[in-house]
Amino acid sequence: MSTLWSKSSWTLVTQSARLLRRLTTRPPNLNCCCVALLNSDSRRRFTVTTAHRRQAPPHSTVADMAPKAPKFDIKTPKGTKDWDGVDMLVREKIFSSITDVFKRHGGTTIDTPVFELKEILAGKYGEDSKLIYDLADQGGELCSLRYDLTVPFARYLAMNKDITQIKRYHIAKVYRRDQPAVSKGRMREFYQCDFDIAGTYDSMIPDAEIIRIINEVFDSLGWKGTYTIKLNSRKILDGIFQVCGVPEALIRPISSAVDKLDKMPWEDVRKEMVDEKGLDLVIADKIGQWVVLKGQRDLLEKLQQDEELSKNPSMAQGMADLDLLFTILEYFDALHTVSFDLSLARGLDYYTGVIYEVVTEGSAPAVSAAEAAAQAAARPSKKKAGKSGDPDEDRSNDPTLGIGSIAAGGRYDNLVGMFSGKTQVPCVGISFGIDRIFSITKARMAAQKTTERPRKTDVDVYVMAFGGGKDFTGLLKERSQVCARLWDAGIKAEFLYKVKPKLPAQFKAAEQNGVPFALILGEDELAQGKVRIKEMGLASDHPLKEGELISFENLTEEVQQRLTRKKQLDSITQQAGGLRVVHGIKGEDVKA
Amino acid sequence: MSTLWSKSSWTLVTQSARLLRRLTTRPPNLNCCCVALLNSDSRRRFTVTTAHRRQAPPHSTVADMAPKAPKFDIKTPKGTKDWDGVDMLVREKIFSSITDVFKRHGGTTIDTPVFELKEILAGKYGEDSKLIYDLADQGGELCSLRYDLTVPFARYLAMNKDITQIKRYHIAKVYRRDQPAVSKGRMREFYQCDFDIAGTYDSMIPDAEIIRIINEVFDSLGWKGTYTIKLNSRKILDGIFQVCGVPEALIRPISSAVDKLDKMPWEDVRKEMVDEKGLDLVIADKIGQWVVLKGQRDLLEKLQQDEELSKNPSMAQGMADLDLLFTILEYFDALHTVSFDLSLARGLDYYTGVIYEVVTEGSAPAVSAAEAAAQAAARPSKKKAGKSGDPDEDRSNDPTLGIGSIAAGGRYDNLVGMFSGKTQVPCVGISFGIDRIFSITKARMAAQKTTERPRKTDVDVYVMAFGGGKDFTGLLKERSQVCARLWDAGIKAEFLYKVKPKLPAQFKAAEQNGVPFALILGEDELAQGKVRIKEMGLASDHPLKEGELISFENLTEEVQQRLTRKKQLDSITQQAGGLRVVHGIKGEDVKA
Repeated sequence: MSTLWSKSSWTLVTQSARLLRRLTTRPPNLNCCCVALLNSDSRRRFTVTTAHRRQAPPHSTVADMAPKAPKFDIKTPKGTKDWDGVDMLVREKIFSSITDVFKRHGGTTIDTPVFELKEILAGKYGEDSKLIYDLADQGGELCSLRYDLTVPFARYLAMNKDITQIKRYHIAKVYRRDQPAVSKGRMREFYQCDFDIAGTYDSMIPDAEIIRIINEVFDSLGWKGTYTIKLNSRKILDGIFQVCGVPEALIRPISSAVDKLDKMPWEDVRKEMVDEKGLDLVIADKIGQWVVLKGQRDLLEKLQQDEELSKNPSMAQGMADLDLLFTILEYFDALHTVSFDLSLARGLDYYTGVIYEVVTEGSAPAVSAAEAAAQAAARPSKKKAGKSGDPDEDRSNDPTLGIGSIAAGGRYDNLVGMFSGKTQVPCVGISFGIDRIFSITKARMAAQKTTERPRKTDVDVYVMAFGGGKDFTGLLKERSQVCARLWDAGIKAEFLYKVKPKLPAQFKAAEQNGVPFALILGEDELAQGKVRIKEMGLASDHPLKEGELISFENLTEEVQQRLTRKKQLDSITQQAGGLRVVHGIKGEDVKA
Repeated sequence: MSTLWSKSSWTLVTQSARLLRRLTTRPPNLNCCCVALLNSDSRRRFTVTTAHRRQAPPHSTVADMAPKAPKFDIKTPKGTKDWDGVDMLVREKIFSSITDVFKRHGGTTIDTPVFELKEILAGKYGEDSKLIYDLADQGGELCSLRYDLTVPFARYLAMNKDITQIKRYHIAKVYRRDQPAVSKGRMREFYQCDFDIAGTYDSMIPDAEIIRIINEVFDSLGWKGTYTIKLNSRKILDGIFQVCGVPEALIRPISSAVDKLDKMPWEDVRKEMVDEKGLDLVIADKIGQWVVLKGQRDLLEKLQQDEELSKNPSMAQGMADLDLLFTILEYFDALHTVSFDLSLARGLDYYTGVIYEVVTEGSAPAVSAAEAAAQAAARPSKKKAGKSGDPDEDRSNDPTLGIGSIAAGGRYDNLVGMFSGKTQVPCVGISFGIDRIFSITKARMAAQKTTERPRKTDVDVYVMAFGGGKDFTGLLKERSQVCARLWDAGIKAEFLYKVKPKLPAQFKAAEQNGVPFALILGEDELAQGKVRIKEMGLASDHPLKEGELISFENLTEEVQQRLTRKKQLDSITQQAGGLRVVHGIKGEDVKA
């Protein structure tokens, strides 16, 4: 913005503003030089141009601190956002559903710092390491923002040698300098909800419980039947690569290429293997026979019947694992949600066994990159839909970008040993991508066009003063004292921050926040030791429409009784209306 | 550590480790070259020395990923820590007590990114700005970790012009590159719990409600009578400075010096004013008459009676404010917790009105800096108690450092305008320092030497297999299916991850986690359509000591009935034993 203004016009603006301030002694109205940018991607982005804050003396006094808006964008950093209002309520509901499931399976929670020593994260994330945020070197230790919750968990286990078995969950923000697509929940700062089972146990039982947990989480969010758990094993994948003849050093790069099969056709992946990674064409074609296959027990049997594959030790182990896993998943009534998918590879270095990724409608891009390229070639290109170019640019409108996986994880038996040096603690876990789950939930809510708005606060009682005329005191003392009594009793209460409030303004405030009860103080009633309580929103012919007089002395008990009664009634109404917790989240709505 | 080893000895170590691995095909046991450092300050600090991870090829295969411990310290960054176990439970309890209070006063929550644009934070924190953590410049925007939750809140209000009134709370981590003292809760990463009231209202009503909220928070934590709210007004302080003749440009620096009166005697503060800030000695002595005074209404009256002070406009406004504030605090039954303290100045630039800081036993240092200096001079100095020198060094054992204030805040009417340029949104708020509150809670718990340990998980039922002999299958299928049925019913359940578990191992696991019920599957009972349920920890002569046989078909209902009954019984026992939620936190214990 600042380039729009020459230096001399700036001086003029600053001077006018100063003059205006002197004249009005109120905050200067800078309408004349304010430009509000309403960006379609980011409604709240707001730009003002005026004197730069840094021109103020380093120690400005109170008087000096009158508004001097800065000339930079007032916004959150790219790929991050503020959470508030209904969004916050919906997200809290998602967190609590997930936490319930984690606790149901014996999970206990830990909290690790948001940054780790840089060296802790080094060499753990393969090609994605370039996306790690570093802290500036300001002296002392070099640190980076955590990239996931898994590596910090492994570091924690390596430091706490007395913990050899734990089911831990962790709900916290992680950081990736990826190209953002905010409306699709692809953020640079985003929440992960992780559940991991650490310890040496009999094979595949914890792995199966993790898959079962995935089922319970999405079922509790009302997504039953709308998600698929893609599953594979690093042992099987490595076995296939070995049998096909991939050189040892190329196994992870080729694995990364295979992982792109959900976004690219086999031809493009094959090209990447051969042209970029230098794989022999014959080997690539051998791989191509296998990695495009999907199934369940049928696919496992097909692999088991292949003599060459079966002889490979990694392959044999991987197949035995999956055989057992499928059996336990049957016991857990969770096998039907799983798709054994040989194209699933996962980018991270640290997986050693079973890997999985959860997808749903919207995970895949609307248009494949190849289709988009074909379409672009067919018409004169006007703009690039934010796809390439500036890596900071938001890709929300890019049709070649889907929401991606909504949860992912796997077994990592050697990660703790990378820190502890000797004590291995095998682990298996799952990470839920809350921002993506939220985006899908939000889109469903919008599609349902729900008109009902959840309450933003939990306040139960609005304390009001009734009166008028020139002798009306406003009863600030009485309102304050009544609120203090209600708060003492644990009752949520508010009153208008006005010495002499008008009744309509008080009712308006109560209605805006959906407060269920008004407690109205009047001088005449107080003189008789009474106050009026009125339930809000009653029909005009309701017998209690005008409220009831209750004893001032026992007002907390009287209020408490009415709150309890109302809660019971609301609960019955809610049960009758089905399990609608926050609309759109819980079961029934989604099915309908 | 690495400096302890020459390069050639390193090579030797690495070669031995490789040899060992080849011989054992198990993770190499590096006992021979492992050194564990058990630091007294940080029990969990753990150092291993062996081949550096980075020596591995960039794309290591699964086989390559066998343990290669790094040669750096495996630890969290200085001034940060992991939270787990009982600490986590205690902290969660503190959060929920505070959130209850915030909601009782109509608070609604928001969540902002952990980093902000660097420019957003610039010029807001006075002398403390040097403590801001910057992110490295990796291309794109320059960002810093948030220093508090107040500036991000003001930025949020400036971006959301439709929000002119809000009571918002925010519980999140903030970051300061200060010298840490971990055991005193002085961390570089720490939680703040903020409650702020934004909007234009009649004077002092929201300010009084914030003070009332401080009372409710500490009372709900069981600290009644053990804390003091030090209170002052920037308007009064600035008025005093103006009347004493402090030049406008020196007002904030002199204010910062006055703020140190809780840690330094007046003589030292006076010296700083004159020698470091260049204030006239006569002016300093005038200030000294006032800023050492403490009181309540009596002190306010003393100020009001001073003719010279009363004529100053800032002073007059400040005194009228406090008069009204004290009156409303009386209505709220909260005045007795407040100490009007003219030495309180608060370091931050953005306050414009009332300011406050909550202190408790332990807030002040055990030994003043002057005393410590005198003591040091009197004896041959051996070590510096970690006071000066390395700014990264932990100061937990420094007696000149107290825990400091446990909550602080004030009115900031111009901060939103510093972003929005014209629309001012006056604000007043409070920030609770959770890590310090936690440290004091923990110390109290230790002093009480409670032996009872809270449960780490919420699991209600441990599902076990009973049997033996060579035909014993282990009943993995049945245990899995029973767990799946319990989980479907929302019951928290676990089982041992072993195909053929022994009964004692299963009971041990259940006891370790304090699981209240065992559900024991046996082949004979299953054949009769029965399973055994047994409440754990019953006395040896209890009639149900050996458990009861219940119907396999209705087992979820049978389990649910017993859980409900046990919860009711526990609740009655708890009520009888007083309100002990997590021991040491809730009221009664502390009083006793």
